[in-house]
Amino acid sequence: MGQYVAPLRDMQFVLHEFLNVSEEYKGMPRYQDVDADIINQVLEEGAKFTQEVLFPLNHSGDREGCHYDAATKSVTTPKGFKEAYKQYVEGGWAALACDPEYGGQGLPVVLNNSFYEMLNSSNQAWTMYPGLSHGAYECLKEHGTDEQKALYLPKLVSGEWTGTMCLTEAHCGTDLGLLRSKAEPQGDGTYLISGSKIFISAGEHDCAENIVHLVLARLPDAPEGSKGISLFLVPKFLPNADGSVGERNPIFCGAIEEKMGIHGNSTCQMNLDGARGTLIGQPHKGLNAMFVFMNAARLGVGMQSLGLTEVAYQNALVYAKDRIQMRSLSGPKAPDKPADPIIVHPDVRRMLLTGKAYAEAARAFSSYVALQIDRELHHPDEDVRKDAADEVALLTPVIKAFLTDNAWIATSEALQVYGGHGYISEWGMEQYVRDARINMIYEGTNTVQSLDLLGRKILMDNGAKLRKFGEKIKAFVEDNGLDESLSEFVTPLGELGDKVTKLTMEIGMKAFQSPDEVGAAAVPYLRVMGHLVFSYFFAQMAKIALEKQDSGDKFYESKLATARFYFARLYPETAMLIRQARSGASNLLALDADLF
Amino acid sequence: MGQYVAPLRDMQFVLHEFLNVSEEYKGMPRYQDVDADIINQVLEEGAKFTQEVLFPLNHSGDREGCHYDAATKSVTTPKGFKEAYKQYVEGGWAALACDPEYGGQGLPVVLNNSFYEMLNSSNQAWTMYPGLSHGAYECLKEHGTDEQKALYLPKLVSGEWTGTMCLTEAHCGTDLGLLRSKAEPQGDGTYLISGSKIFISAGEHDCAENIVHLVLARLPDAPEGSKGISLFLVPKFLPNADGSVGERNPIFCGAIEEKMGIHGNSTCQMNLDGARGTLIGQPHKGLNAMFVFMNAARLGVGMQSLGLTEVAYQNALVYAKDRIQMRSLSGPKAPDKPADPIIVHPDVRRMLLTGKAYAEAARAFSSYVALQIDRELHHPDEDVRKDAADEVALLTPVIKAFLTDNAWIATSEALQVYGGHGYISEWGMEQYVRDARINMIYEGTNTVQSLDLLGRKILMDNGAKLRKFGEKIKAFVEDNGLDESLSEFVTPLGELGDKVTKLTMEIGMKAFQSPDEVGAAAVPYLRVMGHLVFSYFFAQMAKIALEKQDSGDKFYESKLATARFYFARLYPETAMLIRQARSGASNLLALDADLF
Repeated sequence: MGQYVAPLRDMQFVLHEFLNVSEEYKGMPRYQDVDADIINQVLEEGAKFTQEVLFPLNHSGDREGCHYDAATKSVTTPKGFKEAYKQYVEGGWAALACDPEYGGQGLPVVLNNSFYEMLNSSNQAWTMYPGLSHGAYECLKEHGTDEQKALYLPKLVSGEWTGTMCLTEAHCGTDLGLLRSKAEPQGDGTYLISGSKIFISAGEHDCAENIVHLVLARLPDAPEGSKGISLFLVPKFLPNADGSVGERNPIFCGAIEEKMGIHGNSTCQMNLDGARGTLIGQPHKGLNAMFVFMNAARLGVGMQSLGLTEVAYQNALVYAKDRIQMRSLSGPKAPDKPADPIIVHPDVRRMLLTGKAYAEAARAFSSYVALQIDRELHHPDEDVRKDAADEVALLTPVIKAFLTDNAWIATSEALQVYGGHGYISEWGMEQYVRDARINMIYEGTNTVQSLDLLGRKILMDNGAKLRKFGEKIKAFVEDNGLDESLSEFVTPLGELGDKVTKLTMEIGMKAFQSPDEVGAAAVPYLRVMGHLVFSYFFAQMAKIALEKQDSGDKFYESKLATARFYFARLYPETAMLIRQARSGASNLLALDADLF
Repeated sequence: MGQYVAPLRDMQFVLHEFLNVSEEYKGMPRYQDVDADIINQVLEEGAKFTQEVLFPLNHSGDREGCHYDAATKSVTTPKGFKEAYKQYVEGGWAALACDPEYGGQGLPVVLNNSFYEMLNSSNQAWTMYPGLSHGAYECLKEHGTDEQKALYLPKLVSGEWTGTMCLTEAHCGTDLGLLRSKAEPQGDGTYLISGSKIFISAGEHDCAENIVHLVLARLPDAPEGSKGISLFLVPKFLPNADGSVGERNPIFCGAIEEKMGIHGNSTCQMNLDGARGTLIGQPHKGLNAMFVFMNAARLGVGMQSLGLTEVAYQNALVYAKDRIQMRSLSGPKAPDKPADPIIVHPDVRRMLLTGKAYAEAARAFSSYVALQIDRELHHPDEDVRKDAADEVALLTPVIKAFLTDNAWIATSEALQVYGGHGYISEWGMEQYVRDARINMIYEGTNTVQSLDLLGRKILMDNGAKLRKFGEKIKAFVEDNGLDESLSEFVTPLGELGDKVTKLTMEIGMKAFQSPDEVGAAAVPYLRVMGHLVFSYFFAQMAKIALEKQDSGDKFYESKLATARFYFARLYPETAMLIRQARSGASNLLALDADLF
């Protein structure tokens, strides 16, 4: 059922040759011992675990799915998932980037991020069980009381317990201001919470002894709308003071959803019938507390899509070299065979290179943002921390939406390489496409991401964050613009930078007339931003590859060819996107809803 | 599970107001009695059948799938499929556009085409059972012996028997020259055929008493490659002279495939173990005979995708009006409700209008091509027949590839309108996306279509067919270019026409240097052609709508808004595509296969 080999060489190129992370870490006390050797060792171990333990369960997990037992309200995960989770906990993987204060290994976010790429390449559905725990960990660490931290964090860090986010209700997903779940204070610091939640990933399962639900609900005195939502910690089993699990809390799974993909992950309807919980953070400030979780989760969704892009590409590549069909248009390339391997055909190469380019750029981009998170959290200089935080805020919606849209394109192209076999379940390709589709929806739809980027992150601070990031690009263009060997990369980068500046100002002006202009431009605008980022990273990587191409290592030749493909074939999307973003709101709003 | 209402008003607009088909038919003896009343009556009956009988089986058919019984090598279709097929036969639907000589109703291809849109909107998987029969009918009518025709055509026309195309083998799909199935002549005009075929849609099922397989195989004296392939008629049951079914022929289904979608249709592995067949057409000329089938099938695949685009759009529209979530950015539009219906949001409208525009243009385009087929077959003037045939040849690959790519985009956007609910099977949207995916692959992948268009249909006849079609567009632009009210439509159409001319010449020149340049440009080139066609049809429809917009019928307002949306939001894709097509082969071919 296909194959997966973690792309260690490209990961190492990004971390060591491009970002030079261990140099960076020398300046951060928390990470000063994290050198290239440690990083490579963890990556290699991560590769083994994901290739050998998780990947073999990916297809079978999709075919089998999760089982719900109505009598016990319990969920059984697909064969092998529970055992793999046990190995994950025993291997200490859950603790990788967690705080040593709670039992974590204290390794950088960058490393955890690379590990998550591998996890998702090998098994996205499985990865969502530990993946959601990490968000709960971050949220509790930031907003939890000392007691909550002491009781829950060590268990989340070890992986003995997993976490969830219980936000969505049947009538509200994007618009959480409409939510109806209620929390009644009991006067003892606890609350009894009642309501119904849907689409709760990993809401119930058999991998861990306890599940820590983070639940949004309203207090009795809550203001209406999104300013009246509080966040509660609601464990499946109420823990005893010694950390052992006690009484079963009435938060039960009522059903699991049949869905397009990620069949191996349980998507649960959760019913709370006076379940006991404690408040996280301030009353009515639940959404603020949840945002910590959401940002980590959005980067995580980007990594899901990078993972799928990579594994789908790898498999399509193997097939394209193996499958023989037709002769090359320019004459036989394998005259000893009855036909040529299909990788000789230009359009098959276009499909493959689309996956390769999207994966490599996404890897550089997401590793860069992860490094910014490391800076934001642990750099000794406050200005550096602040700048890093601004960049993370600016780029997170781009990671989420651009990478997930790209994965939808790239996994579908990888399927197409297989012809009819791509449509057959047995080959495994169609699962990647189905799994990839959810990433454009959850943790804020891609439309929501685009409004977050253009409305909140750019226009609401008068473009300050964008300007700071743009100055980096400008400096790179100016430093390298006269280098002839780089001009094929730097010139289009510089041009796009100018176009983004102009486009942003135009939309900003139009937004004064009607805020609908922002809504009408946001989705193509985000993809233009995505291409600006990818152009920037490809140009930088190409510079390194040019410098090293005489080393004899063919890796650099491949990197250069991929960058050239990107500028020739993917970058031109900006010509379409800018026209769309500029076309305004009237072509969308003119028609009365009744006349659709 | 959603809804489907056949878009009769838009179909009637296309057939009567735009194409004015009944005027056309007055000049064709075969169809001279086919007036608007007859057409509308058939459309209305077709709408009832598809809405009431087939649509309710679509989702359940997907969930249940087909069942294979290894002991009897038989396939059971999902609950209700067999009964619906019986109603289809009893209603005379199979005979709609067939020759009265064999029991057909002799109605135009245009009408059959509109009916197929409805069939596919309501149930693509079911529609493939009768859909493949129609191809077998056309192939036999064109190339069959008198005896074959007499024995098989009445049964195919009535729908009592269904048909298949048995082309693909495990090692060859696109490259049929590699196929290995053998046919041994028995000296009595029959052949014993042995081999294994895969991906045979409707290869075995329980809807009809007999199945007429059209099988490609090699005769003992066959030359190698694609010039040594012959076509055979191999019935499941050998018919007796009176048309009753006789002996079971050893062509058995060995397994059915698990696949991404169209679960209600059986995709069979067929094993022939000395199955008795008769030759269709000339020895070694099987591919020529098959092409009749393939062309009809390619238009049919386009109709599958139009059908899916329409039904997915309809459902997304209902949801977008019903679902309330967030306020409009420009202030509440439904202040009496806790939130606005999501159709107020510009980006939701973009998604909806994408489906609406693609469906309406595809409907006009495919009806136009169907009318050209009617002309090709039945116009008394030979020159008209020849010109029509040329246009059908030119436009068939565009119908197949452009409409199927668009449906993949539009069904995915329709899913996205539902947010998380779109990913859940219960809502039915994800099935449309899964079903749509196969259409880009079968009956020649979309890459194959693009090579057929650019290589065979355009460059190989020095652009003659394209020039003739282009002259029509040019005449329209010249006739209407000075009309100010039309310039928003006609100007971009004229510009794109000029660009296509220039691009075609450029690629033609490059092709002299290397044929790989054709392969490198073909896919984006085909989509540019698709947009030229859509621009042409939208401009013509907008002209009619402008003339009639004061009639008080709001339909014309909607048509104009859709055309404006098309030119503002979808047409700009050409800016990307032309850059891609022009970027040449080197960005695809430079990298050694080992360095991917």
